[in-house]
Amino acid sequence: MERIWNGWSRHTQPLPPSAFPLLEQRLGSPQLPPQATLQDVLALLPPSRLPEHPCWDCTPMTRLTFSRGQSLPDWIALKSGQPGRVPDAVAQPGNDDELRQCLNLAKEMDLDIIPYGGGTSVTGHVSPRPGQRPVLTIAMGRFNRLLRLDSENRLATFGAGISGPQLEAALNAQGYTLGHFPQSFEFSTLGGWVATRSSGQQSLGYGRIEQLFAGAVVHTLTDRWVLPPLPASAAGPNWRELLLGSEGRLGILSQVTVRVQPKPAKEQFFVSFLPDWRRAKQAVQQLVQQGVQASMFRLSHPNESEVQLMLSLFERRRAWLYRLLKLRGIQQAPVLLVWSVSSSARRPVGTIKRALNGAGAVWHSASLGRKWASKRFDAPHLRDPLWQAGYCLDTLETAIGWDQLERLRQTIEAALNNALTAQGQPVLVFSHISHVYPQGASLYVTYLFPYAGSAEQALDHWQRLKRAASEAIVAVGGTISHQHGVGQDHKPYLSAEIGQTGQQALEALSQQLDPDQRLNPGVLLP
Amino acid sequence: MERIWNGWSRHTQPLPPSAFPLLEQRLGSPQLPPQATLQDVLALLPPSRLPEHPCWDCTPMTRLTFSRGQSLPDWIALKSGQPGRVPDAVAQPGNDDELRQCLNLAKEMDLDIIPYGGGTSVTGHVSPRPGQRPVLTIAMGRFNRLLRLDSENRLATFGAGISGPQLEAALNAQGYTLGHFPQSFEFSTLGGWVATRSSGQQSLGYGRIEQLFAGAVVHTLTDRWVLPPLPASAAGPNWRELLLGSEGRLGILSQVTVRVQPKPAKEQFFVSFLPDWRRAKQAVQQLVQQGVQASMFRLSHPNESEVQLMLSLFERRRAWLYRLLKLRGIQQAPVLLVWSVSSSARRPVGTIKRALNGAGAVWHSASLGRKWASKRFDAPHLRDPLWQAGYCLDTLETAIGWDQLERLRQTIEAALNNALTAQGQPVLVFSHISHVYPQGASLYVTYLFPYAGSAEQALDHWQRLKRAASEAIVAVGGTISHQHGVGQDHKPYLSAEIGQTGQQALEALSQQLDPDQRLNPGVLLP
Repeated sequence: MERIWNGWSRHTQPLPPSAFPLLEQRLGSPQLPPQATLQDVLALLPPSRLPEHPCWDCTPMTRLTFSRGQSLPDWIALKSGQPGRVPDAVAQPGNDDELRQCLNLAKEMDLDIIPYGGGTSVTGHVSPRPGQRPVLTIAMGRFNRLLRLDSENRLATFGAGISGPQLEAALNAQGYTLGHFPQSFEFSTLGGWVATRSSGQQSLGYGRIEQLFAGAVVHTLTDRWVLPPLPASAAGPNWRELLLGSEGRLGILSQVTVRVQPKPAKEQFFVSFLPDWRRAKQAVQQLVQQGVQASMFRLSHPNESEVQLMLSLFERRRAWLYRLLKLRGIQQAPVLLVWSVSSSARRPVGTIKRALNGAGAVWHSASLGRKWASKRFDAPHLRDPLWQAGYCLDTLETAIGWDQLERLRQTIEAALNNALTAQGQPVLVFSHISHVYPQGASLYVTYLFPYAGSAEQALDHWQRLKRAASEAIVAVGGTISHQHGVGQDHKPYLSAEIGQTGQQALEALSQQLDPDQRLNPGVLLP
Repeated sequence: MERIWNGWSRHTQPLPPSAFPLLEQRLGSPQLPPQATLQDVLALLPPSRLPEHPCWDCTPMTRLTFSRGQSLPDWIALKSGQPGRVPDAVAQPGNDDELRQCLNLAKEMDLDIIPYGGGTSVTGHVSPRPGQRPVLTIAMGRFNRLLRLDSENRLATFGAGISGPQLEAALNAQGYTLGHFPQSFEFSTLGGWVATRSSGQQSLGYGRIEQLFAGAVVHTLTDRWVLPPLPASAAGPNWRELLLGSEGRLGILSQVTVRVQPKPAKEQFFVSFLPDWRRAKQAVQQLVQQGVQASMFRLSHPNESEVQLMLSLFERRRAWLYRLLKLRGIQQAPVLLVWSVSSSARRPVGTIKRALNGAGAVWHSASLGRKWASKRFDAPHLRDPLWQAGYCLDTLETAIGWDQLERLRQTIEAALNNALTAQGQPVLVFSHISHVYPQGASLYVTYLFPYAGSAEQALDHWQRLKRAASEAIVAVGGTISHQHGVGQDHKPYLSAEIGQTGQQALEALSQQLDPDQRLNPGVLLP
């Protein structure tokens, strides 16, 4: 699998033909959006402000390849042939010495630095910002090896640029797993997971990256900072928790040590169908508060399951499914719960089925569960065919206490549905609960809107949608990000969550470790 | 239960008479140490440098009461009638406005501030340091109420000065528990637990304070900083993890929100007896790495169980126990494992017994388990009768990976055993593993040495012991504290763990939030 220069991958999913009538019904017949060719875009690239150097590559193709992440503004820029600012050079160091040399050069030559992992950021972590200084992107993909598996202490140390598949392959070969499976798994990297506080689909069982991250080697602009993987410590604040979410502002991770575990004998996945959102949500809340040994609950609101079934099942199979659900008493779009148990244990499976049955579940399908698991990283691949058909797709996510979750969902969905009313543009919005905790849950919202007018107009529409949703999140008291990080896009909403004091403390830290503010400027902090 | 001005409590435990021969055999006949009376000490108190004020109390008795923690230097100072520096005044605010007024006065009048919870620090968190500025101790004991129990989200918000028993009583009355039971539980406070990264005896089941701490109101010198209890967030670094272990350097906690859970139907405690340290340790390691549903494993090395049985059991009962163990094949001091399962579930109990039997366990006693649980907070109460008999007792603790644990234990014990050789003083050293993790475990070391010569000499002996043990910990790579914090006593060893960069980052943060360095100066940071 390889990332492409202007999207997710070459390996796009075809949409079932029946998807289009529904999209047209909801969103109208869109204008076909631009599809700038690689040649078009390369021709538009501003010349590099950096001389050739053995430490980096200034060729246009490389600079373009590492210029952007996967946010909708990133997509619009590249697809419409308006790449904007791109890095002046890209370094791909292969070891700590080479990385240190890049940092030293950046100081000597007064450069800004953007650390780059898998380039899967959806909030603007890796796109250069306007500024006087030339920009050096440091791509970490060559730090891609398992350096040490310490089975006695259940720890594994990797180069920070290792991708999800590389990491799991190296661990699986020795009977271990990390169990961190974000949707970006195919391309995103361990260092990126740490730097953005990533959360995998099965974090309920395996832990969020905060629980998995044990130690690191970090290159700040002045120091090689080693944080040892202690089992626990009361020696002052935990600096690992400062690196988690530091988004490249404090230093560049070159090695990361994580807590691993033996790969379970079995991963069991199920899809359950329920009639009622409120009751289903309550059942899941009770299960997680009882501490049931599940590794995932992913609960789609009917507004999502309707679209999801339409986008993933061809017509005959979908009709068959709806007939089955109707026979069992679900007349409309179902509530769809995907859940997993990361062992061969039967007891939690039984506990969960009983609880769901109590909430009216009509069917638990292991075969659909297996199908979901086999396609668990596919959603981003749908974005390209949707774009080609004229539909812009974006997602956002948050988390909040159980008591406010429904209010938050309704407020965000309403904000998105109404955000383009003045522009006369429809929006299709749907949601699922993606991660659950005893204290609350995360909410993952997807929205589609038709490409209209021009790239500028599409960007304007996106900005209105993003602002409306973010303000709704802040108003209800959710976090501005449960798993995607702050980047450039969530920056205006950060102080609502961490306070003026948190903001000042973060600035003081960044000033201490990077007095010239050359590490990923414009991300996370003003 | 009430703390006394120069020790733990009035409720001292008598030592079994048979304890004294063994102590004499190991440590010789000590000189009886001084027992300064309250009158002696009050007469020696330096006059307050602060005027009377409605916000605080300058009376000598109050200043003395809040002058010290429970470290051995604290004990030597008070017992020998050399109180040294004490606060010039003690404020006991009852609400946020009064607390804010104290902070404002401290700025106006150029005072240093020491936040004071239960006064149970054993590393010098609450003792005034020499300095020009008058010292205002702010005792938080009136912030002692449950403010909100949010059962829907399993959260409870308390005044930060609430003590362990007050907190559990308030939760238990509504069917909930926090499950945080450090040995200092009777006096220590929620705010103190957070500020020092405390760990309860059953943290394996209930979580360390890091896992329990969800949100706070913190008064910095300029701001009322609110950190909301989000279920999870990827919005940059986690500031809660900066407050955890901040030891009063960044601000004063007035409210703390914690994750709670329904009180389990049953707490099952057992004491198991095993013949072999290495095999017992391995069994516990395997159990925790398998994720067994236990809430505690506390494994005493034979050098500890021998002393522990001697100090806690009267002679007849002890002889009976040793006969029983001998009959079952344990000829010498046993390895003693205290463990708990925080539910009425039988399955984990069976799993654990089988694993321990596989390691040669000869007896699992539920009645001794219940006895241990009923006396779980008693150890500090033994310190006073030991002192009266002429023995100084101190403890220290660390944590490290499983692979280095035995080496660390041997290195620390040897360092302590040899630390006073030049002084011709014997030391009695013993250890247990107190907290276990898949990645490693904590080690809790107790040492006794005879009071000899004078208070100055006792303090000198303690300093030699502390230095030897701390250097041993750093040399092997353990944390300088797993649960007691840094305070003044561990400060010289902090940078070995967090690096020069961590140290500088901490200083930058402290400078940002407290530019005049008046919040607990000398603690945690130079």
